[in-house]
Amino acid sequence: MNHTTHHPRKIRQLLPIQDVRLDGGFWKDRQELITGVTIPYIWEALNDRIPGVPKSAAVENFKAAAGLSDQGFFGLVSQDSDLAKWIEAASYSLMIKPDAELEALLDGVIEILDQAQEDDGYLNTHYSLNGIDKRWSFLRESCELYCAGHLIEAAVAHYEATGKDSFLRIARKYADHIGRVFGREEGQKRGYCGHAEVELALVRLYRVTGDEEYLRLSKYFVEERGQKPYYFTVEKAAASSDRNIMEHLVYALEEENYQHSQSHLPVREQEHADGHSVKGMYLYSSMADLALEYGDGELLQACKRLWDSVVGKRMHITGGIGSSAVGEMFTFDYDLPNDASYNETCASIGLIFWAQRMLRLEPDRKYADVMERALYNGVLSGLALSGKQFFYTNPLEIWPEACAVRKDKEHILTERQHWFDCPCCPPNISRLITSLGQYIYTLDEDVVYTHLYMSSSAKIGSGSGAFTLVQESGYPWNGSVRLRIEGEAPVKRTLALRIPGWARDYAIMLNGVDITKETAVENGYAKIDRVWTDGDTLELLLPMDVEKVYAHPKVRYNGGKVALQRGPVVYCLEEADNGPVLSGISLPRESKPEARFEEGLLNGVVALYADAVKTAVEQPALYSAQRPAEEKVRIKAVPYYAWNNRGRGEMAVWINER
Amino acid sequence: MNHTTHHPRKIRQLLPIQDVRLDGGFWKDRQELITGVTIPYIWEALNDRIPGVPKSAAVENFKAAAGLSDQGFFGLVSQDSDLAKWIEAASYSLMIKPDAELEALLDGVIEILDQAQEDDGYLNTHYSLNGIDKRWSFLRESCELYCAGHLIEAAVAHYEATGKDSFLRIARKYADHIGRVFGREEGQKRGYCGHAEVELALVRLYRVTGDEEYLRLSKYFVEERGQKPYYFTVEKAAASSDRNIMEHLVYALEEENYQHSQSHLPVREQEHADGHSVKGMYLYSSMADLALEYGDGELLQACKRLWDSVVGKRMHITGGIGSSAVGEMFTFDYDLPNDASYNETCASIGLIFWAQRMLRLEPDRKYADVMERALYNGVLSGLALSGKQFFYTNPLEIWPEACAVRKDKEHILTERQHWFDCPCCPPNISRLITSLGQYIYTLDEDVVYTHLYMSSSAKIGSGSGAFTLVQESGYPWNGSVRLRIEGEAPVKRTLALRIPGWARDYAIMLNGVDITKETAVENGYAKIDRVWTDGDTLELLLPMDVEKVYAHPKVRYNGGKVALQRGPVVYCLEEADNGPVLSGISLPRESKPEARFEEGLLNGVVALYADAVKTAVEQPALYSAQRPAEEKVRIKAVPYYAWNNRGRGEMAVWINER
Repeated sequence: MNHTTHHPRKIRQLLPIQDVRLDGGFWKDRQELITGVTIPYIWEALNDRIPGVPKSAAVENFKAAAGLSDQGFFGLVSQDSDLAKWIEAASYSLMIKPDAELEALLDGVIEILDQAQEDDGYLNTHYSLNGIDKRWSFLRESCELYCAGHLIEAAVAHYEATGKDSFLRIARKYADHIGRVFGREEGQKRGYCGHAEVELALVRLYRVTGDEEYLRLSKYFVEERGQKPYYFTVEKAAASSDRNIMEHLVYALEEENYQHSQSHLPVREQEHADGHSVKGMYLYSSMADLALEYGDGELLQACKRLWDSVVGKRMHITGGIGSSAVGEMFTFDYDLPNDASYNETCASIGLIFWAQRMLRLEPDRKYADVMERALYNGVLSGLALSGKQFFYTNPLEIWPEACAVRKDKEHILTERQHWFDCPCCPPNISRLITSLGQYIYTLDEDVVYTHLYMSSSAKIGSGSGAFTLVQESGYPWNGSVRLRIEGEAPVKRTLALRIPGWARDYAIMLNGVDITKETAVENGYAKIDRVWTDGDTLELLLPMDVEKVYAHPKVRYNGGKVALQRGPVVYCLEEADNGPVLSGISLPRESKPEARFEEGLLNGVVALYADAVKTAVEQPALYSAQRPAEEKVRIKAVPYYAWNNRGRGEMAVWINER
Repeated sequence: MNHTTHHPRKIRQLLPIQDVRLDGGFWKDRQELITGVTIPYIWEALNDRIPGVPKSAAVENFKAAAGLSDQGFFGLVSQDSDLAKWIEAASYSLMIKPDAELEALLDGVIEILDQAQEDDGYLNTHYSLNGIDKRWSFLRESCELYCAGHLIEAAVAHYEATGKDSFLRIARKYADHIGRVFGREEGQKRGYCGHAEVELALVRLYRVTGDEEYLRLSKYFVEERGQKPYYFTVEKAAASSDRNIMEHLVYALEEENYQHSQSHLPVREQEHADGHSVKGMYLYSSMADLALEYGDGELLQACKRLWDSVVGKRMHITGGIGSSAVGEMFTFDYDLPNDASYNETCASIGLIFWAQRMLRLEPDRKYADVMERALYNGVLSGLALSGKQFFYTNPLEIWPEACAVRKDKEHILTERQHWFDCPCCPPNISRLITSLGQYIYTLDEDVVYTHLYMSSSAKIGSGSGAFTLVQESGYPWNGSVRLRIEGEAPVKRTLALRIPGWARDYAIMLNGVDITKETAVENGYAKIDRVWTDGDTLELLLPMDVEKVYAHPKVRYNGGKVALQRGPVVYCLEEADNGPVLSGISLPRESKPEARFEEGLLNGVVALYADAVKTAVEQPALYSAQRPAEEKVRIKAVPYYAWNNRGRGEMAVWINER
């Protein structure tokens, strides 16, 4: 591993969120589902107006802290973050689709937040309602800075969406308070949060305000993590510790071993992705942010090591991460059990956050490949086609009876839920999908990198060099992508198109002329340098064959098994299509799966069909020297993300191969 | 399922333990290991003289209760049973190998028990030392009757071994006390134990004393179980309940659902093997005892239903039972995970106890087949070749790193332990192996059923009809069994030889003449009816081919997999022979495993060799459309029972088949 320190050459920009709009196709449909159904649904849930689901009280808590309600605090210490993430998603929704009613609703919520904020800037309903004297006393589990981070992110989004600074002022006041409380000066607490999040939020706050204090505070939190003496040991011993009211938490795992919060070592010394997977993704994202802002090559190297650890050894084919339900955490290399991994939706979302930041440090398709993998599979599986049900865990294999009966599988839910006691995933998936435009491009000085393919239009550059880049694509069902330049003046740029890792071949056409052979590919990006004029059209043709994919042999769980993937979409078998006992199916090596788009299936998907064999389900004995009878069957696979939209049943991504 | 009530026609007897002696071969070696090494070792452990192992205090507790020590009680509520089971095993040892020193040692222990017994007969150190006013107040978890049962069994064994009634008197006094405390009369407690055991012990006490009160008490305990109102609910609500001091117990699972102790339904209504697997085996054993003693056909039907549930749907190929580590219990049909099942050694021992009793009800080889399966595999795996280390759990697949890191596998130990906090298995395996002679034969009036094949001599009959049946066999390494009659007078008997379920073929020779075709087979037993004279020799020839065995397709974990078995012995792959990543091995369908006896391997075993393929362990990527490179390998399989005698490593019973 190369530990040499070097500096990123330049900072690659993201396009302002408003400047990239999805125009149609697969993701526009999902954005409309989120803005039209999910965001209103979550608002109802946060206001406890959906019968039969776990209580939220997220809004009520803020009203109570604002003196507008006499209810006590309800919920987890992370409860404030649910509302914050909803505000962030709703703000992105306003950028996609102006909505005066929603904007007014947000104004009202922000007014409550304003009233709930303490005079010194502190803003956390759990402590305001349960005893503010205990604040900042048990950072390991209190989620205060985590909640603060989400409030800050939401405020930045709201400001960017509306131009109003009503929420941003609240967030800055809170961030300023945090800056006074934490640090290495006399009288400051030398702590950091047990759940990373505020670190990346402060970078966003710095970027929107230009106030470098926020960047320094982020750097402090990131650098202090894992230093000795361990802050979490110190705070636990303190008389003022609030540890007692946290004792119900499952994360008591980390007594004297702070891997769970990635606080066991200074971040620059961390070699493996350990601990809680969402915490990890948020921390690594902030490390990438700081590596970028400070040109910190050593921090970049740490990010790259951790990236290789996650992506090379600890990630499911779906982009699911976190192999242990207990602790919702990473375990060890190649431990990727299909029927037991946690694979929290939020962790795969965090992986996308991190990948986007790595792409700003170095444009290498390996980051975009993972971003795409997580997006089309392990993230999207978290959302029902209805937009109103959600998976928290995203296993790759389900035997419903086992999850119902076995205590070691009780964390694995077999059906999407309407709401959760800890409803972190629904607003998280909402804020990601409403801000997807941010993930398509990065801009180098003269290079436009295209990382994701989705029908969209993006405003690039300003003044006389401005142009619009219009993408049209049937992705992910076909791999034809067309990029059209719309602009008044000719503009010299390099367009860099990602050739996905899954593609066996590709062709590039410029205004109808095949330029594949003349086009250099660097780090997975085909670069076309040219003076572009209005109407120039670049086409990328990616044949989407059905691929049989194999896991590394050290993944014990997948020995002798194969998965099916087409383009970025990973497939699974469902009981609804193939009957029970999916483990009885074997795919012969010579079988060639076929793809067929089916309009009426799961809102329109490409399904895969293949000749296979299946053992007869009924057999006389539990053990027999007679090989079970087999029959030829035609198996049908559907996109993994769409599983469990037709009732409860068995599901399997990995299929026995013969 | 046939619920028709019918009565067993007759009671089949067991031979007195002293009358069957192992003469040599596989099991004689194990008996010598147990008597020479394990029993002395356990005595040291029970006296806390083995450095570095968990404290027992089992002897010290009795000394304290006897007023001979001022230590307080130490250990689990079941701690007394460890000493009891050791006394039982030591008593059998005396029958095998007279040992004046051991006998004197037992006399001394029994003297302590005598002094520890309360005046009214009660004998339990936990309550005598912790507050006798709380006795019998929390039967669900107190293990008092469970411990009583083991004391009674030990006393019966001691009496049978030595002819001394010193311990039997103590046991009877205790049993009489229990008879006064429990029952349906006014002033009696209408309870039963959360862990069945006393029920079968009381039948043994009845058989040795002839006192029918003990039989009736057993029947009461068995019949009362599961009646409403649930006794465990009643006792929990009582002011006198000792529930508080039991709150540390893991079995708090069973709040208001008494499946864990098989107390959810009256025993005659139970359809499935549910709950704690050891508790279940002991209960079903006592049910079989009572069905026999009372000629109770309905109870027999219940036993048969439960047998089919265990053996037809909930048992590993090794005879391992109890698929959940949490609760050490059964789960649901076909849920037999190789890497997560508990498969407690004691549960497989209990399965043998039950099978032996079923054979007395109906001689059907299906019971003996399971007895043999458990004995050679899931029981024997509990004991190291050294005789001093033990497995509590007996999984069928081990990836050591997963057990070390994954919280959901922390119950699965990857190496045999020197001792346990709950050391139930070491003395249990000792008492089974020292009394193995009891399991070979049952006697009908004129039929001698041979269930197990092991070199031995048995005294059968009395007076002028007496003869000795001498078995010689290289079992389990070869299937040639020779039975020789030694007796002064001719005797007319039917010898019934079990044709094991695993045997594809067999031949029977009478004094060198092939009588296979003339010999009728009934319920799996070949019956040879004859007037036998001294020197008559019957040979059973069972070809021991290597069998590829398949699990029922509904066992999801074994889809596409095969196990190797030869005779009664189930095989496994070990990392020691095959390198790491056993999941990368595939056995082609056409591969024909070969067997070879290896004197120097694992104290002498038949090893299996087969041509197979294995994926290269090193691959560049975590996921790839390139099938991993494969190489041809010669795999080596060793008997499952002998795994982990060459250090820690991967192990797998079920192998991918191609």
